[in-house]
Amino acid sequence: MAEGSVGLWLIGAKGGVATTVALGLQALRRELADNVGLVSSLPQFAALDLVPWDQIVVGGHDIRSASLYDEAVTLHSNSRVFDERLLKACQVDLQDLESNFRPGTLHNVGPTIENLADADTRQSETPRDAVSRLRDDLEEFRTNHNLRHVVVVNVASTEPPFDVEVPANWEAVEASLAQNECPLPASSLYAIAAFGAKCSYVNFTPSIGSNLPAMCELAELHGQCHAGRDGKTGETLLKSVLAPMFAARHLEVMSWVGHNIFGNMDGVVLNDPANKQAKVASKDKLLAEILGYAPDSLVSIEYIKSLGDWKTAWDHVHFRGFLGTPMTLQFTWQGCDSLLAAPLVLDLVRFTERAGRSGETGVLSHLGSFFKSPMGEGPVEFSQQFQHLTEWAQQTAKASSQNGLSGSAEQNGVVAERNGSHPPQEAKNGA
Amino acid sequence: MAEGSVGLWLIGAKGGVATTVALGLQALRRELADNVGLVSSLPQFAALDLVPWDQIVVGGHDIRSASLYDEAVTLHSNSRVFDERLLKACQVDLQDLESNFRPGTLHNVGPTIENLADADTRQSETPRDAVSRLRDDLEEFRTNHNLRHVVVVNVASTEPPFDVEVPANWEAVEASLAQNECPLPASSLYAIAAFGAKCSYVNFTPSIGSNLPAMCELAELHGQCHAGRDGKTGETLLKSVLAPMFAARHLEVMSWVGHNIFGNMDGVVLNDPANKQAKVASKDKLLAEILGYAPDSLVSIEYIKSLGDWKTAWDHVHFRGFLGTPMTLQFTWQGCDSLLAAPLVLDLVRFTERAGRSGETGVLSHLGSFFKSPMGEGPVEFSQQFQHLTEWAQQTAKASSQNGLSGSAEQNGVVAERNGSHPPQEAKNGA
Amino acid sequence: MAEGSVGLWLIGAKGGVATTVALGLQALRRELADNVGLVSSLPQFAALDLVPWDQIVVGGHDIRSASLYDEAVTLHSNSRVFDERLLKACQVDLQDLESNFRPGTLHNVGPTIENLADADTRQSETPRDAVSRLRDDLEEFRTNHNLRHVVVVNVASTEPPFDVEVPANWEAVEASLAQNECPLPASSLYAIAAFGAKCSYVNFTPSIGSNLPAMCELAELHGQCHAGRDGKTGETLLKSVLAPMFAARHLEVMSWVGHNIFGNMDGVVLNDPANKQAKVASKDKLLAEILGYAPDSLVSIEYIKSLGDWKTAWDHVHFRGFLGTPMTLQFTWQGCDSLLAAPLVLDLVRFTERAGRSGETGVLSHLGSFFKSPMGEGPVEFSQQFQHLTEWAQQTAKASSQNGLSGSAEQNGVVAERNGSHPPQEAKNGA
Amino acid sequence: MAEGSVGLWLIGAKGGVATTVALGLQALRRELADNVGLVSSLPQFAALDLVPWDQIVVGGHDIRSASLYDEAVTLHSNSRVFDERLLKACQVDLQDLESNFRPGTLHNVGPTIENLADADTRQSETPRDAVSRLRDDLEEFRTNHNLRHVVVVNVASTEPPFDVEVPANWEAVEASLAQNECPLPASSLYAIAAFGAKCSYVNFTPSIGSNLPAMCELAELHGQCHAGRDGKTGETLLKSVLAPMFAARHLEVMSWVGHNIFGNMDGVVLNDPANKQAKVASKDKLLAEILGYAPDSLVSIEYIKSLGDWKTAWDHVHFRGFLGTPMTLQFTWQGCDSLLAAPLVLDLVRFTERAGRSGETGVLSHLGSFFKSPMGEGPVEFSQQFQHLTEWAQQTAKASSQNGLSGSAEQNGVVAERNGSHPPQEAKNGA
Repeated sequence: MAEGSVGLWLIGAKGGVATTVALGLQALRRELADNVGLVSSLPQFAALDLVPWDQIVVGGHDIRSASLYDEAVTLHSNSRVFDERLLKACQVDLQDLESNFRPGTLHNVGPTIENLADADTRQSETPRDAVSRLRDDLEEFRTNHNLRHVVVVNVASTEPPFDVEVPANWEAVEASLAQNECPLPASSLYAIAAFGAKCSYVNFTPSIGSNLPAMCELAELHGQCHAGRDGKTGETLLKSVLAPMFAARHLEVMSWVGHNIFGNMDGVVLNDPANKQAKVASKDKLLAEILGYAPDSLVSIEYIKSLGDWKTAWDHVHFRGFLGTPMTLQFTWQGCDSLLAAPLVLDLVRFTERAGRSGETGVLSHLGSFFKSPMGEGPVEFSQQFQHLTEWAQQTAKASSQNGLSGSAEQNGVVAERNGSHPPQEAKNGA
Repeated sequence: MAEGSVGLWLIGAKGGVATTVALGLQALRRELADNVGLVSSLPQFAALDLVPWDQIVVGGHDIRSASLYDEAVTLHSNSRVFDERLLKACQVDLQDLESNFRPGTLHNVGPTIENLADADTRQSETPRDAVSRLRDDLEEFRTNHNLRHVVVVNVASTEPPFDVEVPANWEAVEASLAQNECPLPASSLYAIAAFGAKCSYVNFTPSIGSNLPAMCELAELHGQCHAGRDGKTGETLLKSVLAPMFAARHLEVMSWVGHNIFGNMDGVVLNDPANKQAKVASKDKLLAEILGYAPDSLVSIEYIKSLGDWKTAWDHVHFRGFLGTPMTLQFTWQGCDSLLAAPLVLDLVRFTERAGRSGETGVLSHLGSFFKSPMGEGPVEFSQQFQHLTEWAQQTAKASSQNGLSGSAEQNGVVAERNGSHPPQEAKNGA
Repeated sequence: MAEGSVGLWLIGAKGGVATTVALGLQALRRELADNVGLVSSLPQFAALDLVPWDQIVVGGHDIRSASLYDEAVTLHSNSRVFDERLLKACQVDLQDLESNFRPGTLHNVGPTIENLADADTRQSETPRDAVSRLRDDLEEFRTNHNLRHVVVVNVASTEPPFDVEVPANWEAVEASLAQNECPLPASSLYAIAAFGAKCSYVNFTPSIGSNLPAMCELAELHGQCHAGRDGKTGETLLKSVLAPMFAARHLEVMSWVGHNIFGNMDGVVLNDPANKQAKVASKDKLLAEILGYAPDSLVSIEYIKSLGDWKTAWDHVHFRGFLGTPMTLQFTWQGCDSLLAAPLVLDLVRFTERAGRSGETGVLSHLGSFFKSPMGEGPVEFSQQFQHLTEWAQQTAKASSQNGLSGSAEQNGVVAERNGSHPPQEAKNGA
Repeated sequence: MAEGSVGLWLIGAKGGVATTVALGLQALRRELADNVGLVSSLPQFAALDLVPWDQIVVGGHDIRSASLYDEAVTLHSNSRVFDERLLKACQVDLQDLESNFRPGTLHNVGPTIENLADADTRQSETPRDAVSRLRDDLEEFRTNHNLRHVVVVNVASTEPPFDVEVPANWEAVEASLAQNECPLPASSLYAIAAFGAKCSYVNFTPSIGSNLPAMCELAELHGQCHAGRDGKTGETLLKSVLAPMFAARHLEVMSWVGHNIFGNMDGVVLNDPANKQAKVASKDKLLAEILGYAPDSLVSIEYIKSLGDWKTAWDHVHFRGFLGTPMTLQFTWQGCDSLLAAPLVLDLVRFTERAGRSGETGVLSHLGSFFKSPMGEGPVEFSQQFQHLTEWAQQTAKASSQNGLSGSAEQNGVVAERNGSHPPQEAKNGA
């Protein structure tokens, strides 16, 4: 087993998901919560030697300086989640984390997200300066806590859609960072900082993040893993489960309408049509991919304050059966967004760290089951995505047991093979 | 390609499913319907050389002598299914089929089904005499229509649960047929007749049919294929699709409640608690198999006349997510039972005939995706069941193309052996 | 009882509602349909001496020249409504009606509705000329069929919202008709023509129609009745029934979200945001009126072609109970729009004609239960609106039995009393 | 205004509803809760001079000796209701109430309820002795707390249906109390004790309680008010709101199916088919009364532990519109049972006390809106029931202001007559 702790650096560290991640991690460490909701705790992944909960240290960037504990209390009272005893038991833990948070960047996040930021969030720096500052934060975090690896996870608010042409090679993009006109949004700057600091990067949001050719080049340059985009927690999860059924039964989906309502801060941001568009696009293209044709499809996301963190989705699927008979499937999903997302973030940290430990670099396509718009090649049906993950786990565990004893030994070997002479973790560990 | 037509012999030939099968087949033959709803028409099965629609001849047993066309008209007006032009176009076809129907048997079907029978349905014969008579019907059907094979499909009303101990070997069961006290119900007598007449047997109902060791022995004895039980058309299909999602996400299903309402003749029969029990048991055990634990579960089926053939299911899934957070998924399924079942019956005929043509015998476990309670070994998750089917199709198509030129060569061998004394494997392997 | 037939003049005479009105009326006359769905057939209105079905003659304006029978067949095949035998039985009736239809006007209906119009629909005439032409059509209709009264009902597509300042007195408005810049939309021009021809005017749409002070003056000037706006057929009906329950139980509605999807031509028009806005506004203001406060509220209407005439509404009501406990009511309404609207149109014709026969003029506020945005003073809760209607019926029936024998006698008397010396029906009857 | 406190004596004082009543009353008194959910706090009832929250004293009978505070905590953690701060703030209040609780009786409650009882709940006493003991408890309560009146409210578990013939006059029933074979169940013995102790009696359950001719005689004999049966909190409330809509629109309800699932102790008791039958009957007869015909109807209630106090109802209404078109309304109600019931119990106490203060006796039919099976004559539609209540309130307030100065003057008279020999009407009329 690998020794030493792993860092989880959250972009959007004071949001609902991040708050739940931090609280949940303390609850797991204190054994006040069972492992329900955690994919990585399933028996299928028991042989993987994943990092244990008590060896994950949380830090992060945010544009708001709210207290994490207060955020948790607000989530508790607005949305009736968390046990009050749990909150109390973890209060000091959460307060101790405050020293691990640093101010983020607002570059190209759009006015709606800017409005949520603290007044003093620095906006004057160039993108290059921002990257440099963010990278220093990551390196300081790793040093302070003596971490053997850090996984950066973006759980910040959704940026407006990114549709600017960007050069495909890193060198050209790198040069553009010196100018304030550089079109890259914050999610990408965080990724650049992450890779530069030899960290993995996971994008749990629909923002563009590392999903650009130049960024993929950068990840490989630094020998780092990345994965994304847009955590698949509710309605889209159901779509990726149900649409294959219609396909396998040769039932023709004529229309699929999905209405989502919810009331958390994500909702406030999505009430801006620009930000919403990124989200809806991410949810909508799945059907055509699975079915092989594009049914009449509609996805709406609306902010309804009273619902708090409870995202309610109503989906109406109108399909045609034998002899042209129209039939209907409707479902209502009432899920608590942060509580659905947070365990997946923890899973992603464990799986990503594990992949890096085995020497993998670049896009982790076996994590497709976690995302609405998976990066890399891979199946779109949920069951096949999950099968992909379990097969990867089997191979990784097998390779690991063949390779010898410790994670670090294995890692060095594999990395050497794949990546030339510069094992990414060496630099990190300072070995 | 195999030459010659294939028979489809329906048990319950005047019911809603059989009526739709017969009408649908004519519609396909006349190219008045597209292939929506037909699994066997998917591209995945294009290389299988399945029997074409215009080479399937319909016959069957029923305990009621109603006119098939009248049944179709009733279904049309009660449930708003079928196009009136389609009905008209196929009226003569359906009327021509009437000469292919024979009276069935009521042995141990219980009083509710007995009440549906025509007054003159013979009940005085011994089970052995009944089997003999039914077998003669099948052989006459094959001869009259010069069929190369006949697949018997049970789509009759659900019998009360069968919980009698029956000897595990065929010889002992065979001996018991002489006595009226023989506990085997009609669904099994039809299967015995089918195997005896060298026909395949598919059980689309929850009745026991061929799902007894002695019957499996009999099927092998005659070198025949069989499959079952209980067509998976609606709520259970969704369960076998959704439950794996909860398992893969490690979400704990606390309770799963399903209420089904519908108003067809199946519903009348299920209003008898004895018959209903068989159905509910068939629907209910799936969850524990998929999840690995048994949530609080409830399935009800109620007869509501106004719904006609439209089965409406409401399912309420109460599950626990991260940090013990209870969440809910509800769905409503509004499907027309006969229109969902009929294409699957047609698919099963094609796949079963194809398996037999390749020399397979015994339980066809690769047909598990079609059934609520699949016979034989196999996965319980729908996606894996479907994968099983497509893999079988690939192997079968590949084996067929390797084995020689045309299906008919292969088929001739099989047919020869089918009507003679050689076990089908020999012909297949030695050809 | 009043002698002579009554005319029903439909604006939008070839749309789904009008088609269903025309077909339904023939079905009632031929006794091929029972009176389900017809409010005016309830026992509460038996003493009212309403005009019988076989004394209502249909005519109308439309901007499309489609055949009414073809429209009915399309509705049948797209939306699975109407019995085919009914269609056949009434085919000739519908074809005979064609001579009663005249081209409408497109003045200020907006581009989306214009696109639906036949190429030759005249757009060059001034509003005044249009009114004159439309009025001539009405008078010709009355004369040709020897009608004692004509009720004009607007069931045309929804116009964009009308928010122009218009003079409050008829004289000024009348003067503006000479100019093409006159902002009045078609729905108002039809109303002007109706009043001018001594007809009643009922606005079953959200368009502005007669809901302007100057128009109310004009109605009184001609001694005519009018009523509107926007037939209450589905989701809003439920709102006006359910919201009073929350109010009476002192449950606080925090949010009420309603999503409507449907696929008829109304939907095509509402896909234009301008036209949709008029509809949504009409649906949305009800809650605040009933509850006394405005909950967070959202109404969407989306065009989903596959649904045809079936309007499906999902409503999610989030309410707060005792000790601040949040609870939820969700409903799904699957109603066929034209079949819900058409009987109400027939009811409105009967009730409006009856009110006029009793000498009533101006806005008929006792018809509030039929409308989403009732004109005139009156309650907003459905139960009270319906009580208003039944009380009016009692009073009207009582007054009628006291007044003497025949409708016409009564009419003359009452009108004289209420309206001075110019009984409106006199002019109409040519007395 | 009347002086002095009023007692609220709860039968089933440790159940979920009673616990919520007690906690809610403290919350109102301490101004930790607003008046949402309380009908009696609506402006319509402001002039009634209802007893204020801080003048209601709680006591009660139960067959279990659980601590009220512990019950509240359990309800909080099982069902996620109540704010933890509220619980804390009222902890001492609830503990102080413990001295007001007395053991109940198990006479004819059936084995399922018996199984819930403490081992020492006395079962040996005759009905007469039980009544005597219960009456002493009530009188002691009134004396100890110096109460001007006590309202007894039955919120205990539902007894099996009561279908025994009982003499219609009180004298004969009274005589039967001496025998253990007396068929009256506990709910009736509590009512006898209540009337005997000059208390009002409200039956919030489907149990028979005071709904027998002999009991009505007894109530009048003692000059007391009573009301019942079966609090209308959820699905039936919706039925009594929605069914009148279908009636008013002349839409034919073909079938109405309602499935209820919930997991509180009431559910445990209703899992016994005998107890359930009483409940289902109470819910089911309403439709025929409102519609004037009996649609195909089905109500199920099932115990699903995971739901705790959250009662979820799915209703499927299949109705026929114009030209025989079948349409559907479905709703899902997710309500917390105790939180819906408790405020109605508080309302009933206030309204019942107020009626008694005005000198009313016998069945309070103006309270019909609160009950599934209202005693006495009155409308069945919710809106009319509520109108009945508001009209009563207007009349009562008016009579009170005419009668003199203060409620206490009026009250003194009533009280005098209550404790003496004069019929209450005299005092009321002659005051």
